[in-house]
Amino acid sequence: MDFSESQKVTTIRGVVREFMAAEVVPLEPTLRHDGFVALLPRLHEVRERARQTGLFAAHIPEAYGGAGLTLLEFASMSEELGRSPLGHYVFNVQAPDVGNMEVLIEHGTPEQKSRYLEPLVRGEIRSCFTMTEPEFAGSNPVWLGTTARKDSGDWVIRGHKWFASSAEGATLAVCMAVTNPDAADPYHRASMILVPTDTPGFELIGNISVMGERGGDWASHGEVSYQDARVPLANLLGAEGEGFVIAQERLGPGRIHHCMRWIGVCERALDILCRHAATRELAPGHPLGEKQLVQAWIAESRAEIDAARLLVLHAAWKIVTAGARAAREEVSLIKFTVARTLQRVLDRAIQGLGGLGMTDDTPLAYWYAHERAARIYDGADEVHVESVARRILRGYGMRTR
Amino acid sequence: MDFSESQKVTTIRGVVREFMAAEVVPLEPTLRHDGFVALLPRLHEVRERARQTGLFAAHIPEAYGGAGLTLLEFASMSEELGRSPLGHYVFNVQAPDVGNMEVLIEHGTPEQKSRYLEPLVRGEIRSCFTMTEPEFAGSNPVWLGTTARKDSGDWVIRGHKWFASSAEGATLAVCMAVTNPDAADPYHRASMILVPTDTPGFELIGNISVMGERGGDWASHGEVSYQDARVPLANLLGAEGEGFVIAQERLGPGRIHHCMRWIGVCERALDILCRHAATRELAPGHPLGEKQLVQAWIAESRAEIDAARLLVLHAAWKIVTAGARAAREEVSLIKFTVARTLQRVLDRAIQGLGGLGMTDDTPLAYWYAHERAARIYDGADEVHVESVARRILRGYGMRTR
Amino acid sequence: MDFSESQKVTTIRGVVREFMAAEVVPLEPTLRHDGFVALLPRLHEVRERARQTGLFAAHIPEAYGGAGLTLLEFASMSEELGRSPLGHYVFNVQAPDVGNMEVLIEHGTPEQKSRYLEPLVRGEIRSCFTMTEPEFAGSNPVWLGTTARKDSGDWVIRGHKWFASSAEGATLAVCMAVTNPDAADPYHRASMILVPTDTPGFELIGNISVMGERGGDWASHGEVSYQDARVPLANLLGAEGEGFVIAQERLGPGRIHHCMRWIGVCERALDILCRHAATRELAPGHPLGEKQLVQAWIAESRAEIDAARLLVLHAAWKIVTAGARAAREEVSLIKFTVARTLQRVLDRAIQGLGGLGMTDDTPLAYWYAHERAARIYDGADEVHVESVARRILRGYGMRTR
Amino acid sequence: MDFSESQKVTTIRGVVREFMAAEVVPLEPTLRHDGFVALLPRLHEVRERARQTGLFAAHIPEAYGGAGLTLLEFASMSEELGRSPLGHYVFNVQAPDVGNMEVLIEHGTPEQKSRYLEPLVRGEIRSCFTMTEPEFAGSNPVWLGTTARKDSGDWVIRGHKWFASSAEGATLAVCMAVTNPDAADPYHRASMILVPTDTPGFELIGNISVMGERGGDWASHGEVSYQDARVPLANLLGAEGEGFVIAQERLGPGRIHHCMRWIGVCERALDILCRHAATRELAPGHPLGEKQLVQAWIAESRAEIDAARLLVLHAAWKIVTAGARAAREEVSLIKFTVARTLQRVLDRAIQGLGGLGMTDDTPLAYWYAHERAARIYDGADEVHVESVARRILRGYGMRTR
Repeated sequence: MDFSESQKVTTIRGVVREFMAAEVVPLEPTLRHDGFVALLPRLHEVRERARQTGLFAAHIPEAYGGAGLTLLEFASMSEELGRSPLGHYVFNVQAPDVGNMEVLIEHGTPEQKSRYLEPLVRGEIRSCFTMTEPEFAGSNPVWLGTTARKDSGDWVIRGHKWFASSAEGATLAVCMAVTNPDAADPYHRASMILVPTDTPGFELIGNISVMGERGGDWASHGEVSYQDARVPLANLLGAEGEGFVIAQERLGPGRIHHCMRWIGVCERALDILCRHAATRELAPGHPLGEKQLVQAWIAESRAEIDAARLLVLHAAWKIVTAGARAAREEVSLIKFTVARTLQRVLDRAIQGLGGLGMTDDTPLAYWYAHERAARIYDGADEVHVESVARRILRGYGMRTR
Repeated sequence: MDFSESQKVTTIRGVVREFMAAEVVPLEPTLRHDGFVALLPRLHEVRERARQTGLFAAHIPEAYGGAGLTLLEFASMSEELGRSPLGHYVFNVQAPDVGNMEVLIEHGTPEQKSRYLEPLVRGEIRSCFTMTEPEFAGSNPVWLGTTARKDSGDWVIRGHKWFASSAEGATLAVCMAVTNPDAADPYHRASMILVPTDTPGFELIGNISVMGERGGDWASHGEVSYQDARVPLANLLGAEGEGFVIAQERLGPGRIHHCMRWIGVCERALDILCRHAATRELAPGHPLGEKQLVQAWIAESRAEIDAARLLVLHAAWKIVTAGARAAREEVSLIKFTVARTLQRVLDRAIQGLGGLGMTDDTPLAYWYAHERAARIYDGADEVHVESVARRILRGYGMRTR
Repeated sequence: MDFSESQKVTTIRGVVREFMAAEVVPLEPTLRHDGFVALLPRLHEVRERARQTGLFAAHIPEAYGGAGLTLLEFASMSEELGRSPLGHYVFNVQAPDVGNMEVLIEHGTPEQKSRYLEPLVRGEIRSCFTMTEPEFAGSNPVWLGTTARKDSGDWVIRGHKWFASSAEGATLAVCMAVTNPDAADPYHRASMILVPTDTPGFELIGNISVMGERGGDWASHGEVSYQDARVPLANLLGAEGEGFVIAQERLGPGRIHHCMRWIGVCERALDILCRHAATRELAPGHPLGEKQLVQAWIAESRAEIDAARLLVLHAAWKIVTAGARAAREEVSLIKFTVARTLQRVLDRAIQGLGGLGMTDDTPLAYWYAHERAARIYDGADEVHVESVARRILRGYGMRTR
Repeated sequence: MDFSESQKVTTIRGVVREFMAAEVVPLEPTLRHDGFVALLPRLHEVRERARQTGLFAAHIPEAYGGAGLTLLEFASMSEELGRSPLGHYVFNVQAPDVGNMEVLIEHGTPEQKSRYLEPLVRGEIRSCFTMTEPEFAGSNPVWLGTTARKDSGDWVIRGHKWFASSAEGATLAVCMAVTNPDAADPYHRASMILVPTDTPGFELIGNISVMGERGGDWASHGEVSYQDARVPLANLLGAEGEGFVIAQERLGPGRIHHCMRWIGVCERALDILCRHAATRELAPGHPLGEKQLVQAWIAESRAEIDAARLLVLHAAWKIVTAGARAAREEVSLIKFTVARTLQRVLDRAIQGLGGLGMTDDTPLAYWYAHERAARIYDGADEVHVESVARRILRGYGMRTR
């Protein structure tokens, strides 16, 4: 084993870290106090400067206009970007566009690519992914109410979605809909369909209020109604009935990206905690960091973050060397492990900062509230726990229902 | 030991529970979506109906216009009120007014009582408590920067405070300021002084943004500046140099109130979780509640809440039978125990609800974000842990610095 | 609610605590270094002195020769006895005899009582309870392989049991065996049968080695074989097919006894930790107890033990006032709550003592190893968690398989 | 980064795993039921066969008669050996001999090497390390009572030691004693001295009873008295006053060895749990592994073990590439992280096995009891937590006492 970082990764980390400190972190107070929408003009400018670094849309192959980083290279970049809630957006590697771009590259027709992928890579448009439905449990993804039926050369889509992140302002929605309700295998009943958001019958009902905030534009979670929205049959993305297979594929690397972003959050949180502990005095000459409970939070966070990072990089390496399918167990393990580490590290940092940690003077409170979702989306902890254990136990001969 | 509830408490619980369901819970969606200030007119009406129950300002002696409940009776009422973020406000038993009223009853002069206590009990005015300072660690309360010096029959106050909850809209501020900087015992250097908020030199700089919200009126945390604010010497509340002693007294029953409120929050959260688990289907005919991990969250929450309630009621009983001083250890124990139970129960409920738990369709998200402060204010967990352990170890002969 | 202890309980606690300190704790080093069997002669003498206290077989009604304590009175005595691994034995209130005596009182025929109950109460004989079977999961108690068939006026018993605690040296075994294999309700297939251990066909195969020790006499767990052991039909204890119903009944108060014993263990462990923390110096003048992590262990243990005790006493009170059936949820909650508290408190005490905690110079190591079983026997944590949650969720309308 | 295992490591793992299954695991029942001493003759034979694998004393350079594995290669071998309590002993890579051999290689004089190192490497003699003292806290290693004074060409040693693991049967003791009590730096007051155990004045008082067992021979922890034990000045190991520096050095790789051994324990425990969960039925056709709580134990253990292994291998890699001094933080992190993982994994496995987990039919109970010490020896968790946090906080400018 060789744990050394490549020269290229070291360089990328350096460039990004410097850019983040100079250009992105200073935007945070405005984000927290005035909201994402108020920041859009400044973000536009900063994005232009991010383009100059050559790392815009970094994970997209150069052939499609990106920087062509490998999964492992991008993982380290993603950690650096994760240190600010705005990092990924600035470099046009934000969810859900990243995943949508990846699916378009893999499964899009030439026309779909030129119409949607190219402007997405250039950061000219945004997209959303509509899958989750309020009436059905997200932990059983094959149980969907949204349908798409064929009618005179069109798909006619009807259904109700929510947690369509970044739907506000999106030009394109990727819709997961049941197209083959009678397929024997429930994993082959749904398809992905591209729906321009100006399609009649596509309605953004509004943004869901999450942890006290409705947000706006990219920083929002939409509720969407498809009321017989009609798009050409050519808008099918990938093969019919393959929606879940494609979604699964999309999630593998997507979870690496998320996990590395969370590790970036953890590093920033620990940095804030340490800075505070080293300088805040409880009495003259007695910094908070002398307290053994605070020391425990710091040392335990350091250990958990380092372990989490290695676990994620190992999973990424396995995806690259053995394929996403072979790495399914590793990907499930990192999903719940890192999400929990994230919650614990943020919790300790807030406790260490005391009242200050509750305020929006640091990004801790925002992350504590909004990243609570990390243990829920892309497969709740319990879903991953169950699937990993079942796979392991099958290896011991257990037959389950 | 006799764990049976008195007939009076059973009756109060019933009245309050019914009132909450009929009058208070229906206000919650507006609170979450439009904020506290938008609710004020309706709250005014509901408060009028709360008055009719005879339980308005319930913990205040009848002589002062309250309902005269004992600490233990009020504890059970406080649990019922805690089931909604608005419960305490509606019955005029909300922090920080409750504590301020208690101090005025105990230490106020006749004039202070007629001028401030009476309208507070009637719910005509509100008050705030200015103690915490951004420049000094809250975990060392005797280290304060705010001073009050005597000058021609006045106190002249200068200092900077934050986390002055409910300062917006308050008529009265209770200010903790150093009046005797040279006292040998650091616990006898500060005094409490009554400062009308229209005093020149008293400035509400603004509301602190906490977990993404600045809030408003009662539902806010103010930053306050005293710039040579001048009030008559007669505005001293209690004896000079006794500020901490009085604050300590104020906190004992105050912690009972908070803990019982948190238990009400826990009960509501568990109720929401159980309702969801019993009815949300993962597949047709298979409710979420069949899942053993969900069952564990429910059973463990049930056990922790029941244990927490008994611990709090026992501490209240000890305050009543042996005095607040004798019950200091018990009060410290409940402070950190119940605050942690609260965090765990809310966390489990959110995880059980999944995406829905993140939204403002239930009060869970609000509590998850804002009640994170429970482990911080009124003495952080670590402060109580340390003081309890030191007291115990002194009993084993340990001499500490 | 009234948390005050009755004068009688205060007196009992005092008597027992003094007796334990003077007579029982001094036996512990011999127990740990030479084993229970080596102690038997001295235990015999100490038991004689225990008899003088009037608290021998304390929970047994006076009519049957005991001290007639109520469940709540005995609970507090049990806590005091729990401070030493020998306490319950010395006062003849040790498992499994306590449970067997209770069943005999409730269900025994006059002849069974005179033959077995009376000498048990006098401490002249011992008994064991044979239920668990190595081939079947203890968490599904109705799935048993042991059968008893009627043949010419006898029960003929065949089966294999283990974890028959205290079988070595026992005069009597209570055997749970399937007598009605075709009963529709699986809870009505087994019966309890009294089997003298000198019955041909009853064989104590040996003691199971548990956590490195086989133990001996009362302090052992036997493996038992019934090879067509033949006893008269009159040896049926209670009604035919009622074995589980009786076992359930036996477990309710039994769990109170165990839980209070565990709380006694916790109190002793915390006492040992505090004594060490107050006196062990890390450097001259700097006792271990100055360390904040040690303080956290002490304060958290104090809180958890106090909460656990109240929860158990409340459950006992509910059994007394509303009946064992009504208190089933409460009893399940204390079972897993106190067992976990026990494990945590012992773990902290060992960590606080460091290497010393690993040695047999204190009882901590013995308890850490052997009381690990607390989370397993009498219903593993998971069994109780599931049954509590299912009962709660039925109240919300959930129908389960 | 490259996570692939070298061909050599894969081969070693294979050889060792096969040897362990065929030769070592079958000895375990005798170990548990009759003790280590009873196994010595069979162990002697198995050791001879272990020699044939070419991996005897595997970590010792070939020049000194070992197999010359690198730290990373040996780490993986150590994991495989850790799957049985006897693995390391069989291959002559057991503590404390491994550490003593490493120190002799690094600091021994040619004569010390020929007299002690060579027979140790050949497995002809054993050694012990006497450092910890009952009267002084192990967490402050520089506070020692044992002294060695020079007298007529000899060291005269006086002191009291315990936890001298494997002292029974050892030919050589390495003694840590204060030789320079007046040195300004407390870390330069003690030296290491070689003391043959037949030296007059060296007395093995006895084996400490730990978790109910005194053990014997290699599997024991001795209490040792030095009563003016006299050895030649030439028995100094390394430079005078450098005892702690050498001990620190010795601990770095030593902690890698321990951690990898613990990971082997974890893997075996998880294997036992999975095998049980897959096959043990709770009801016909319903294996234990269907239970979601059991699934959680399996998946969480899998994640924690994998993360722990990567963290340890990374620390080993850092020792190799940057030196032991540069890797001090990493080594502290793995020490407490892996020790805690070990405790959690063993606890879950026991809970999963139920009563069977308490018995000595599997190695789980032995490890649960005896490996509790992992969080205590070689620096308790708290010591490492504190030292890591202080080092980190110094990087933020904190100055501490």
